Amino acid sequence: MLEQIHLLAAVTVLGVFEQAYFFLQVIYARRVFGISPPKISGPPEFERIFRAQVNSSEYFPIFLALLWQAGLFFHQGLAAALGLLYLCGRYCYFMGYRASSSERLAPIYFTSGVLWILLAASALGILHFSLSHYVGLNILRLLTA
Amino acid sequence: MLEQIHLLAAVTVLGVFEQAYFFLQVIYARRVFGISPPKISGPPEFERIFRAQVNSSEYFPIFLALLWQAGLFFHQGLAAALGLLYLCGRYCYFMGYRASSSERLAPIYFTSGVLWILLAASALGILHFSLSHYVGLNILRLLTA
Amino acid sequence: MLEQIHLLAAVTVLGVFEQAYFFLQVIYARRVFGISPPKISGPPEFERIFRAQVNSSEYFPIFLALLWQAGLFFHQGLAAALGLLYLCGRYCYFMGYRASSSERLAPIYFTSGVLWILLAASALGILHFSLSHYVGLNILRLLTA
Repeated sequence: MLEQIHLLAAVTVLGVFEQAYFFLQVIYARRVFGISPPKISGPPEFERIFRAQVNSSEYFPIFLALLWQAGLFFHQGLAAALGLLYLCGRYCYFMGYRASSSERLAPIYFTSGVLWILLAASALGILHFSLSHYVGLNILRLLTA
Repeated sequence: MLEQIHLLAAVTVLGVFEQAYFFLQVIYARRVFGISPPKISGPPEFERIFRAQVNSSEYFPIFLALLWQAGLFFHQGLAAALGLLYLCGRYCYFMGYRASSSERLAPIYFTSGVLWILLAASALGILHFSLSHYVGLNILRLLTA
Repeated sequence: MLEQIHLLAAVTVLGVFEQAYFFLQVIYARRVFGISPPKISGPPEFERIFRAQVNSSEYFPIFLALLWQAGLFFHQGLAAALGLLYLCGRYCYFMGYRASSSERLAPIYFTSGVLWILLAASALGILHFSLSHYVGLNILRLLTA
């Protein structure tokens, strides 16, 4: 069973590593700007770093959910590759948002695009499995016949 | 193996779709009320939509965790059905909260109820498995004997 | 298959239970301090409880992701034991933060330490699996030979 999920697991652990990096950036920014918890407002530079981390955290469960469904029901290697693209895009998003609000836009469009592809792959994979499981209809075989 | 999880996977993907819808609503609200990131405060109408999305995001990993444990250890079909009820309740919550703070209450009680049922199903399922696995005690067989 | 995950599932359900407790504490604090949603600012006592819950929610998907990778690829019992330690640390964090900002520090170092151990165990487990799967290199057998 581990054979079918080890690439997904590797991308998941990498993703956690990236989240840890974002958390550390907020801790450093709190020190630099002198903003102690529980305060979350401050100069725009701080608020941008803070919001970049919050946004990445909100998307993390969504990313994992799609990565795993796409990997299990569509193709593990493809899902893992898209997962790596997503993590790169998230890094660019964080660095861009830290610099200015507008620089977060291009990476957010890119990561959203990757997520929509993962969602489509998941939906297609689950649909294909359900059709062959319940109706006995194997679309792939029909197309290649 | 996919046979035992495809309904859970389908509900998971539907849930991601709903989260995407909530994110888009916040983006539209930011445009309508002219509130650019990283700002998160504004008129109550905006703050209600924003908080509805944040609350839904915070509950999403909890929902997925319970959906999958209940589906794996209790009953996949039942867990998936409860999952659909939860997603409907979340939609009503979002729409209610957008209209007024008090209209979020009924759906939040409903979705909490669904989550407690999923938690109880998960706990019972894991307990049942552990008892038969470690003690060799099969409660279901005892009850029907 | 359930045999290899039932301890992880049990810790997951316990973790959800803890999150539910944190959510309820915020609801009680909102009543005590008279802060109605969507407001999230108020006296420091309220903001500390609120931030403690938000922080715990942000870490919850990360915790689950590492718990399951470490349990599947390294050792289920060890991962579950570390998971219990993490949940205890989270409880101390919440109670400490509620009392004062500085009392959250010791538990946050502790829970971070547990997460880094889980991350190391996950990474080692996945690396070990991949080496033996792709290269046919079984490190454990080499070391004990």
